Amino acid sequence: MIVALAGGVGGARLAVGLAQVLAPKALAIVVNTGDDFEHLGLTICPDIDTVVYTLAGVHNPASGWGRGEETWSFMHALRGLGGEAWFQLGDRDLAMHVLRTAALRRGVPLSELTRALSRRLGVRHAVIPMSDTPVRTRVKTAGGELAFQDYFVRLRCRPRVRGFRFAGAARARVPPPLYRLITGDAVKAIVVCPSNPYVSVAPMLHVPALRGWLRARRIPVVAVSPIVGGAAIKGPAAKIMRELGAERSAAGIARHYGPLVDGWVIDTVDAPLRGRIEALGHDVVVTDTLMPDRCASERLAREVVRFVYALARRGAR
Amino acid sequence: MIVALAGGVGGARLAVGLAQVLAPKALAIVVNTGDDFEHLGLTICPDIDTVVYTLAGVHNPASGWGRGEETWSFMHALRGLGGEAWFQLGDRDLAMHVLRTAALRRGVPLSELTRALSRRLGVRHAVIPMSDTPVRTRVKTAGGELAFQDYFVRLRCRPRVRGFRFAGAARARVPPPLYRLITGDAVKAIVVCPSNPYVSVAPMLHVPALRGWLRARRIPVVAVSPIVGGAAIKGPAAKIMRELGAERSAAGIARHYGPLVDGWVIDTVDAPLRGRIEALGHDVVVTDTLMPDRCASERLAREVVRFVYALARRGAR
Repeated sequence: MIVALAGGVGGARLAVGLAQVLAPKALAIVVNTGDDFEHLGLTICPDIDTVVYTLAGVHNPASGWGRGEETWSFMHALRGLGGEAWFQLGDRDLAMHVLRTAALRRGVPLSELTRALSRRLGVRHAVIPMSDTPVRTRVKTAGGELAFQDYFVRLRCRPRVRGFRFAGAARARVPPPLYRLITGDAVKAIVVCPSNPYVSVAPMLHVPALRGWLRARRIPVVAVSPIVGGAAIKGPAAKIMRELGAERSAAGIARHYGPLVDGWVIDTVDAPLRGRIEALGHDVVVTDTLMPDRCASERLAREVVRFVYALARRGAR
Repeated sequence: MIVALAGGVGGARLAVGLAQVLAPKALAIVVNTGDDFEHLGLTICPDIDTVVYTLAGVHNPASGWGRGEETWSFMHALRGLGGEAWFQLGDRDLAMHVLRTAALRRGVPLSELTRALSRRLGVRHAVIPMSDTPVRTRVKTAGGELAFQDYFVRLRCRPRVRGFRFAGAARARVPPPLYRLITGDAVKAIVVCPSNPYVSVAPMLHVPALRGWLRARRIPVVAVSPIVGGAAIKGPAAKIMRELGAERSAAGIARHYGPLVDGWVIDTVDAPLRGRIEALGHDVVVTDTLMPDRCASERLAREVVRFVYALARRGAR
């Protein structure tokens, strides 16, 4: 069994590929909840929804978030009533937020309702939130600390980033199915999806149970670089790296994760960086890492799984 | 100044007429909240919304509830996720429920947010909920007690009614602007709109402050009969009257309200009942009470206001 750690769009795209390559029992996708937030009284989990919608094939492939065939009557009426309209909520998408919020208020754990709602959409692989208790990414800027969606959506990533804080991570309660994976011996490898290291993967690594698991692991961790040719495919990763003084390259990312990752999958355009990453002590696979469609996702997933098996076999020797 | 007591569709239609005839300072519409309920974690106030939407002209004239130019993507997605789908929530309509629920959770009184949201929609006359604290109509049936919307929407008024209970009415906190009207001397008459006496008007009459006001009043109360030719224009009023053994006619309704009403407006088809209602001690005006459009609403409102003035003048003598 393989556990994939996924953030938003990049995570969802690799997860789709892995789900095509691996049986439901052979894959669990652990998803960042650091960018969850409360808005208009609703609990919104952007990364979970992106992963679930994408796996279910009901996502919006153009935007990367929300549902396909979406309508916007709610937002239109909301503006008419003077409601906060900086965060786009599609009419179909709202069903997820309303049902989730009602279930959370009834005391249903986030992991349980994610399982139930993703199954209703036809998702057969396990999608597990990293925590059943709230973890909230806070962005440190010159102007003070911001809630993540304030930074990410309302201010469109404009403020200069000085760092991050993951409120609630230290006390995060890992969902029971994830706890069983961490403490059992079924998982043979971990895949870090090409998600933003600072705002998608870091929250997961700040959950003590997950960090401890990765640190004490006897199984390989393979990561797909989210930086290709010095830029992020989507999102503010490259801008954040610049602001934090990190090297904006696949090698910079490899240094960022350090010994938490064993094998790196980097894009063909970054082939010249192979030697530098290997010099850091990592195995490297060079391949096309862009995933514009499901076929590309599947192809990349196949390479990742092959890489994982190779590392696992070598570790077992 | 005139205070109108309104329930759903019938109340909204007369309210629209009164709002065309009377200036914003000369009319306050007090609305039933007994059919409010919590659904999918949202607080829904059907009568307030019907009155506000109708006054704002953004209602659905065909159904009588909800908004016009409505879309249904949310319901479609909700069914796909296995959510409770017996209560129809349009995409535009949802904006009201979401904003209201969020505001109530922040502690904003229902009356304040009704004022703010109705003003955003361009409503200039005061729409005041009968209570800022929850009052919930419960329907007594052979099979036990039902929440009102369970009876009204989910079970489509099929269960035989044995009576009603208005949970929370005895402790209802009348909103400050309504309290000022009750305790001041600005109000010169009260109009009971042609709303269901048992489920729209009765909850208001069970709020002690309102009942006390009507009983101790020195101003006329004029009511428009919701029963025309032995039938209700809309809704289950006639069915309920039959089940409760009441006479299904404008005269039966007049007997039901008794001395709480001074003057009755009945439809031309009920002209033969005039003598019986006058014999109960009421003044009677016979006119066309159907309100298929705004012009009809305005015409009826004008007659009602003329009647009210006549009774008020006589009372002042």
